[in-house]
Amino acid sequence: MLVVMKHNASPDAIEAVVDAIQDMGYGARPMPGGQRTAVGLIGNDGRVDTARLEGMEGVLECIAVTKPYKQVSREWREQDTLIHLDNGTVIGGDAIVLMAGPCAVESEEQILTAARQVKDAGATVLRGGAFKPRTSPYSFQGLGEEGLRLLALAREQTGLAIVTEAVDPDGVDLVAEYADIIQIGARNMQNYPLLRRAGQSGRPVLLKRGMSATITEFLLAAEYLLAEGNDDVILCERGVRSFDTHTRNLLDLTAVPVVKSLSHLPILADPSHGTGLRSKVVPMGRAAVAAGADGLIVEVHPDPTRALSDGAQSLYPEQFAEMVGQIRVIARAIGRDLAVAEGMGPDEA
Amino acid sequence: MLVVMKHNASPDAIEAVVDAIQDMGYGARPMPGGQRTAVGLIGNDGRVDTARLEGMEGVLECIAVTKPYKQVSREWREQDTLIHLDNGTVIGGDAIVLMAGPCAVESEEQILTAARQVKDAGATVLRGGAFKPRTSPYSFQGLGEEGLRLLALAREQTGLAIVTEAVDPDGVDLVAEYADIIQIGARNMQNYPLLRRAGQSGRPVLLKRGMSATITEFLLAAEYLLAEGNDDVILCERGVRSFDTHTRNLLDLTAVPVVKSLSHLPILADPSHGTGLRSKVVPMGRAAVAAGADGLIVEVHPDPTRALSDGAQSLYPEQFAEMVGQIRVIARAIGRDLAVAEGMGPDEA
Amino acid sequence: MLVVMKHNASPDAIEAVVDAIQDMGYGARPMPGGQRTAVGLIGNDGRVDTARLEGMEGVLECIAVTKPYKQVSREWREQDTLIHLDNGTVIGGDAIVLMAGPCAVESEEQILTAARQVKDAGATVLRGGAFKPRTSPYSFQGLGEEGLRLLALAREQTGLAIVTEAVDPDGVDLVAEYADIIQIGARNMQNYPLLRRAGQSGRPVLLKRGMSATITEFLLAAEYLLAEGNDDVILCERGVRSFDTHTRNLLDLTAVPVVKSLSHLPILADPSHGTGLRSKVVPMGRAAVAAGADGLIVEVHPDPTRALSDGAQSLYPEQFAEMVGQIRVIARAIGRDLAVAEGMGPDEA
Amino acid sequence: MLVVMKHNASPDAIEAVVDAIQDMGYGARPMPGGQRTAVGLIGNDGRVDTARLEGMEGVLECIAVTKPYKQVSREWREQDTLIHLDNGTVIGGDAIVLMAGPCAVESEEQILTAARQVKDAGATVLRGGAFKPRTSPYSFQGLGEEGLRLLALAREQTGLAIVTEAVDPDGVDLVAEYADIIQIGARNMQNYPLLRRAGQSGRPVLLKRGMSATITEFLLAAEYLLAEGNDDVILCERGVRSFDTHTRNLLDLTAVPVVKSLSHLPILADPSHGTGLRSKVVPMGRAAVAAGADGLIVEVHPDPTRALSDGAQSLYPEQFAEMVGQIRVIARAIGRDLAVAEGMGPDEA
Repeated sequence: MLVVMKHNASPDAIEAVVDAIQDMGYGARPMPGGQRTAVGLIGNDGRVDTARLEGMEGVLECIAVTKPYKQVSREWREQDTLIHLDNGTVIGGDAIVLMAGPCAVESEEQILTAARQVKDAGATVLRGGAFKPRTSPYSFQGLGEEGLRLLALAREQTGLAIVTEAVDPDGVDLVAEYADIIQIGARNMQNYPLLRRAGQSGRPVLLKRGMSATITEFLLAAEYLLAEGNDDVILCERGVRSFDTHTRNLLDLTAVPVVKSLSHLPILADPSHGTGLRSKVVPMGRAAVAAGADGLIVEVHPDPTRALSDGAQSLYPEQFAEMVGQIRVIARAIGRDLAVAEGMGPDEA
Repeated sequence: MLVVMKHNASPDAIEAVVDAIQDMGYGARPMPGGQRTAVGLIGNDGRVDTARLEGMEGVLECIAVTKPYKQVSREWREQDTLIHLDNGTVIGGDAIVLMAGPCAVESEEQILTAARQVKDAGATVLRGGAFKPRTSPYSFQGLGEEGLRLLALAREQTGLAIVTEAVDPDGVDLVAEYADIIQIGARNMQNYPLLRRAGQSGRPVLLKRGMSATITEFLLAAEYLLAEGNDDVILCERGVRSFDTHTRNLLDLTAVPVVKSLSHLPILADPSHGTGLRSKVVPMGRAAVAAGADGLIVEVHPDPTRALSDGAQSLYPEQFAEMVGQIRVIARAIGRDLAVAEGMGPDEA
Repeated sequence: MLVVMKHNASPDAIEAVVDAIQDMGYGARPMPGGQRTAVGLIGNDGRVDTARLEGMEGVLECIAVTKPYKQVSREWREQDTLIHLDNGTVIGGDAIVLMAGPCAVESEEQILTAARQVKDAGATVLRGGAFKPRTSPYSFQGLGEEGLRLLALAREQTGLAIVTEAVDPDGVDLVAEYADIIQIGARNMQNYPLLRRAGQSGRPVLLKRGMSATITEFLLAAEYLLAEGNDDVILCERGVRSFDTHTRNLLDLTAVPVVKSLSHLPILADPSHGTGLRSKVVPMGRAAVAAGADGLIVEVHPDPTRALSDGAQSLYPEQFAEMVGQIRVIARAIGRDLAVAEGMGPDEA
Repeated sequence: MLVVMKHNASPDAIEAVVDAIQDMGYGARPMPGGQRTAVGLIGNDGRVDTARLEGMEGVLECIAVTKPYKQVSREWREQDTLIHLDNGTVIGGDAIVLMAGPCAVESEEQILTAARQVKDAGATVLRGGAFKPRTSPYSFQGLGEEGLRLLALAREQTGLAIVTEAVDPDGVDLVAEYADIIQIGARNMQNYPLLRRAGQSGRPVLLKRGMSATITEFLLAAEYLLAEGNDDVILCERGVRSFDTHTRNLLDLTAVPVVKSLSHLPILADPSHGTGLRSKVVPMGRAAVAAGADGLIVEVHPDPTRALSDGAQSLYPEQFAEMVGQIRVIARAIGRDLAVAEGMGPDEA
């Protein structure tokens, strides 16, 4: 860390900063420059609380040189993290993973139909919400545990792995009983008690980027999971808040190569929430793969116009199938391919 | 709600939209215009899920005319909500309420000293975190229940009311035992299980605006509390995310008069988190009151350079006292005054 | 347009709005709803100034149903605009156009070398700045007319078309003498005198999206060009301002399919300014094409570490060539191909 | 400047950075740390182009320690800049200056009426647009030179000073003939040819902050004016772009104390454009003064419902007068007062 002093900081003020750094247990190295002095803090272990220094007399600003996260970084672990699901799907390797299904589990027929459709098109993981965090208290909030049971049934019948969201610490344990991957939604990216419990769950976790989270905050949220001993973390870019309301969110695809250079964790993209508009999901799904995403999570509904939530951004099954075909070619253009699940037999239903 | 059709939408597409609206139980009224037809949805009770309509053929967009929130709105209740605390403080009336204290409770001496200092300056509510949500898993996370006990001790000795944060549903019950007001932090504004539990707690709730929450989302989060039967909700503007990193957040003071015209709930401002810089807290605290805020929540620490968190944005006690003096004059310029707490005796310690 | 009245608006207030609309020369149709009345404005020709209505008593808001732009819209002209350059390049058709070259023209050797390199890799248009708008008055501001002469020399020797920026109304005429396409930079997107002059220049114009321009504002800026009689307008997404500083801008690729559905004008992407980081240019260039962009404009420098401006985001020539190879495959995956310039002979130098 | 190396940067890479810095004419000082090495660049004169260094192998990032602006900074000139107008108004001192008037000059009667009204309420400067930059090419664009003549007539009759906008370099000379202060609008904050001409005009310049300009970019734009020898620069915060559409812009009042600590230039606030809503102008005008602004520029129209532009955000004359009364009290609370213009005699009309 570099503590930059104001150009007119007195020698006493500089001395006080040096003392404070040493008092915190680190080394201090003053570096006089042409216009001002900076004091280097040596031995930063990522736990320095800059507030104390920033508030001192004569201090202009504190500049972090070390990143505040550790275990998620490529500096900590060079090699890409691979996550192995029971049905043979591997996330984070050369093969691009497709997760697809309806926003919410609505009924047995709906989820089983959707499961077969997305499997036929090439997905190896089924998405579907049982617990739905909704902006309005008056909107449909999901089927709860009944939804989890229906997802497990769909897995039994199709061999697809299951990803579904947990919305509170107690819910993590329940979701972990049924799901292959626990999803933490964007609104909960900084819900630390939830992150801690998910970190202790023994299940892979799909962590969505918060609506206005910087990449650093996103990686720090993942650090909460790794700090609890859970290395199987999948990141997911799903769009950030911006000033234009033409789309629901602004899908930040540059985050994909940025995260891949900073971290060893796999990163997916969610073009459904990332755009909020069905007609933009297919082009942005293709773009995400071209940008280097390790997979997609996409909303597909057997009958989008009857969906209980997010119908406007759900693909028709045939649109999804067409997109998968295009993505296969794009993947090969950059030396990758689509994931297959060895353990996922033919549809038994 | 207005469903706007594309200019080339076919009569069949318009008919299908009319049918869908009626199928959802509302009335439909097509309105042909010069360039395009719009279909009015009549009888909107705030529960219409637009997604189904937005995804239909020929639909350009759905425009909400009714607001999605109800109980929080001035249309629902014309008169300002007043919240009465045990020590006589009234929030939401003519008098401006000052809540102040350290970011985190650190020790008995620290919190008792801080309490006396802010009381002497004119505050009637003491703030202090026992549970701290921190961006990094390696930062100080608060004293937990011990912190709550120290806050209660400070109340006993000074008569100040207590506001402190709960970070998970189970924590709400614990905090409710000790605190006069339960704070929901910005990161948890859309943590719905937490909101529901706080709505059931029987305690006033201070709800901070999320980092990138629109005013509509902010009011909908408050609606979760009122929907559980809790009318004693205090809103708090604390800065939103923006593109400039000179300040930690961008304090959106215009939100104060905007919220006051849309809702009957009181709204405070937090110039400490809203700026992140001690030297900007005083001017922005004054500005918040001039803009019409019903009070302030401010970080004040007996020795900011030794604070375990947020030291750089904590005021020195004498800065706080000076600001209170200026605010008193500003309050009177707009026909208001500072709150006093009748039930708060002289300092007994 | 829909003028939404407050729920408690008086009949007189509604009547006054009806009168005001008629006074402005439009039709008015009051539509009483369950909670409030809205007044439809019929015959909106895109010139209604809402301010007068918004300020009237009892008015909650004015909602535009008609888009404020006309000639740029697909409703005005269904078919894609094609722009033909002298060297045979066609912009806006099935073929994807590559524009490449250094940020600034620095010397004869530099621009001629760059021109041959990007031509060899597959570009048909050469970019290079002669007039550089720089954030700091102390930065290199370009070679001026000498730079234009060097660009013309490069065209003579390679057959590449030339795109270069004009920064003030008088400069438009000068640039028009030398260039095939006049570029309007992001900072000047709403520089109306500049737009008007460019609209009168008789040259195709490449209009970059402003740093915080909505899609609507972007299209309205293009409307200024068409309103002067210039139909040959190429739009360009180049990243918008956001809250994360990991990248220089946030490349909004969803703008590509959004613009293509709203407008008949071609749209390119600029992954160089859109990311500001060399290592992100290639993945985001691929992603832009996968998202449906009609071409790319990319910074390529013979020796990026010696570039006088924007070196950190300039590709090495061999990186550009590799990207072009990948883009060719991606283009075919979506039924497109790379543009060739029939009139661009073999390199004559 | 600090060039931070990647943790695994080779000694050769570090050496290359040192060489490059020396090659650019600066000193280089490598500083090995616990996790990585940083190289200090000594002697930065504010002209270092970081791009060359950022693109080099092994470089993680370049961190500016010196600010990129010079003459506008408090480090360059400690004392507040005072700007003296012919009518005796002083901008930048203890007294708060009020500039008020209609958005656009519409007619002789309108501007003379407005002038008398704002003078009576306490303003000493009259605002009014003769050249209007409008988002749509089909909106009213102002009266042009006729508008300037009417403003001069209003000055003659009332003694008010005049501030009005120039929108292109040639227009600067024309505006300078008539106006006391040349305004540069938000859309033109980075229109460098316009800034240069305004810098040469010999008139004080009111520079509005761009819609998404950082404080640093804002000050760099002002630097263009000072670099041309014009020291009489008045900054103006007028709201920035944000994600919520409840208000037209997000008025960033914290920018006021931030700018005042970084620069010696005076800064005003524009609560009219900053909110876009008449009912929010008064509270935000008060707040701006409480935050430390040196004055306000406010839209006031004799009959806002008939205004040709921006009517919805224009105050009624009596609202303006009431606000001035409140501001006078707030100013005194912080040791200031309202400006008077000694040279502005009684209304002669």
